[in-house]
Amino acid sequence: MEYVSGVIKKSYLTGDEILAQGLVGSEVTVRGAVHNIRDMADVAFVILRQARTVVQCTLEEGKANLNVKDLTEGMTLEIKGDAVAEDRAPNGFEIKVKEIKILSKPDVAQMPVPIKNWKLNTSLETILNLRPLTLRNLRERSKFRIQEGIVRGFREFLTSQGFLEIHTPKINARSVESGATLFKLEYFGKHAVLAQSPQTYKQMMVGAFDRVFEVGPVFRAEKHNTTRHLNEYTSLDFEMGYIDSYEDLMSMETGFIKYTLDLLKREYAKELKTLKVDLPEVDEIPQCRFDEAKKLVSEYYNRPIRNPYDLEPEEEHLIGEYFKEKYNSDFVFITAYPSKKRPFYAMDDPADDTFTLSFDCLFRGTEITTGGQRIHDYQELLKKMEKKRMTPEGMDHYLMAFKYGMPPHGGLGIGLERFTMKLLGEENVRETCLFPRDLSRLEP
Amino acid sequence: MEYVSGVIKKSYLTGDEILAQGLVGSEVTVRGAVHNIRDMADVAFVILRQARTVVQCTLEEGKANLNVKDLTEGMTLEIKGDAVAEDRAPNGFEIKVKEIKILSKPDVAQMPVPIKNWKLNTSLETILNLRPLTLRNLRERSKFRIQEGIVRGFREFLTSQGFLEIHTPKINARSVESGATLFKLEYFGKHAVLAQSPQTYKQMMVGAFDRVFEVGPVFRAEKHNTTRHLNEYTSLDFEMGYIDSYEDLMSMETGFIKYTLDLLKREYAKELKTLKVDLPEVDEIPQCRFDEAKKLVSEYYNRPIRNPYDLEPEEEHLIGEYFKEKYNSDFVFITAYPSKKRPFYAMDDPADDTFTLSFDCLFRGTEITTGGQRIHDYQELLKKMEKKRMTPEGMDHYLMAFKYGMPPHGGLGIGLERFTMKLLGEENVRETCLFPRDLSRLEP
Repeated sequence: MEYVSGVIKKSYLTGDEILAQGLVGSEVTVRGAVHNIRDMADVAFVILRQARTVVQCTLEEGKANLNVKDLTEGMTLEIKGDAVAEDRAPNGFEIKVKEIKILSKPDVAQMPVPIKNWKLNTSLETILNLRPLTLRNLRERSKFRIQEGIVRGFREFLTSQGFLEIHTPKINARSVESGATLFKLEYFGKHAVLAQSPQTYKQMMVGAFDRVFEVGPVFRAEKHNTTRHLNEYTSLDFEMGYIDSYEDLMSMETGFIKYTLDLLKREYAKELKTLKVDLPEVDEIPQCRFDEAKKLVSEYYNRPIRNPYDLEPEEEHLIGEYFKEKYNSDFVFITAYPSKKRPFYAMDDPADDTFTLSFDCLFRGTEITTGGQRIHDYQELLKKMEKKRMTPEGMDHYLMAFKYGMPPHGGLGIGLERFTMKLLGEENVRETCLFPRDLSRLEP
Repeated sequence: MEYVSGVIKKSYLTGDEILAQGLVGSEVTVRGAVHNIRDMADVAFVILRQARTVVQCTLEEGKANLNVKDLTEGMTLEIKGDAVAEDRAPNGFEIKVKEIKILSKPDVAQMPVPIKNWKLNTSLETILNLRPLTLRNLRERSKFRIQEGIVRGFREFLTSQGFLEIHTPKINARSVESGATLFKLEYFGKHAVLAQSPQTYKQMMVGAFDRVFEVGPVFRAEKHNTTRHLNEYTSLDFEMGYIDSYEDLMSMETGFIKYTLDLLKREYAKELKTLKVDLPEVDEIPQCRFDEAKKLVSEYYNRPIRNPYDLEPEEEHLIGEYFKEKYNSDFVFITAYPSKKRPFYAMDDPADDTFTLSFDCLFRGTEITTGGQRIHDYQELLKKMEKKRMTPEGMDHYLMAFKYGMPPHGGLGIGLERFTMKLLGEENVRETCLFPRDLSRLEP
């Protein structure tokens, strides 16, 4: 009988492993894709692209089994040679090639966009149309390593705080959020919708697990066409039982942000450097009431308040600017949003029920988080639904959790692509989504 | 200005923290839900349910501000008292109650099912209908801690092997898999489908990141109604570039399984004990060709071969039994599936193109994984599509990745709920899905 042992053999190395294992000075074998070729007559440089790095391979006339003329961009190769120190090479070393094995060849050697260049210098439209190729550009792909770091930060921090990761269904019978714009589908003869948030599920799960989180897709059939909306995005959600107030939620988010920035600094320095990103310093995050924030920027920037119930994008931008200037903070919590604009499950402030015990987090002037304390009392919930002119019809399962007892709780949702966009200083959320979905884009 | 510091204050403890911090013998404050009350005249035991444990609180007549008569199941409480050693209590200690604060009350104190019992002793149908409540049962909820452990194992192991976690879109323009049963929806006037797998996306991403993985929902509109199919489930997917053969993929899966079993043993012992689960011992996993496996069980169990191109569920079951009996293995890799039954992107065996360089992993007689090497050569891919009578129409983005060069690669997908089911010895995959979706179930 043949067996699989699960011992991962490493017949080849990455550039990072060569450095980490101190193999400069030794013979090494690497694999990668031909990212760039510079042919300088008697010597040629073949830049090999690997998962997180590039390796410079130097090919001297007659020293290897293949000639530079045999190679094209987009081939994948196995190269054996001597790793030697070379200050001018990408990571301080290069490989003097002795043997090349061609692992695969492209059908067309001329790329439709210069992915080997430092910057693509083409339109976002083209970048997205050619996503399978443009992600091979070193800067483009770095964004998604950093995005991974944000997700890791979210999970690792919440796991350390006793949260359970859950997976809730994306095909739902209905949505409980009013004013929702939903994608509809037929489900074996029944009407169904795509989840626009795991809201009701994560709340129900607090009754069983106290603290839960989910990282998953959400679907919004909104006819927005802005630089900060996607119709499908990845939501970082948590819901937390036994809170004293919504301030516990803001503390948890601040903890996550600090943990994540630290993780990025530690493990994603290479990509941060590639993208020339300076991480914000976060020690503590200022908080300000919704109505006060509105007044502050109205006075400071001499701008009339038009909508007393919501923040206009320009107001968010100015609030961001104001708190950066006055308090040197990239983040700010805006609290006490008007009840009128928050969903039925939001808990009203007992001192003034026109406001809710809720908040948004703005990052560099853009909302990245919405959160708040939820109503946990069954009768209160029914009353609030009535006030919002909702019927409990079809909501039995959600209401069941409350009928039989729920702890005080609250939670939040963070848009991953938007968080990434603001962190990287991008202007369009499509830049930080692998395969964005918007009003006109359904492919690739 | 008020600030949020991100320092998580802990005004209350969990039972686990009391033990870990050696606080038995001290005054402690805990929060939790009333799981059970046993009133023994002069003393009452209130079992408080917390995220991963229960805490026994002892209420003596006149010693606290509230009486046992003031309490009902489903309330959530804050209790202050002295933690004292008590062998007969759940974790070897109990809390002598001095002060009780009621945090929330249920609307109805009588649960519709006895969630406080060790076993629910009710039908699966009822368990699922009352999921928000039945998950409060200690055994029921334990399954999903273990499920979390499997996901953590997958991610942690693959991250350690240089894989990048990605998030690919679930709303797609079309599916490339033939014979697919798809959920359809309208997307701003266009036809769209729900992703039945991240297959094409993860393959395209190998060209940019070499190694990628995804944990996310997949959607199958199959009209199955079996104990092992769901119409929406969580798929653990990876795709790996620069492989030498499909055996590298089986090694990676074996590595994941060993890592995960070790993680479960280390960090989920409590839940394993609750569910009386003995983890399988895995050192290496036997592998056997598809045609040989079919012959083996046909001869050994004296059962005719009916379908030479696929394994019937009963055959899978017998193969599992055979390899358990003969090789004491709970897992077995079945390799070299017939080309006829594998999708177009599967690489055929160059020695005999009626077989593919692919495999399934059976766990205790049920398929939990399908994987294999993929075609990476553009022209080969076009030829194979032609052979399968597919047109390249609408597949430009997928084909683009190959046209401009792809490394040799392969990958696999693991059904999370099914893996969990087999690990826990459950008979129905609905038991190990928080909110299952099947032919008749769309709620809760």
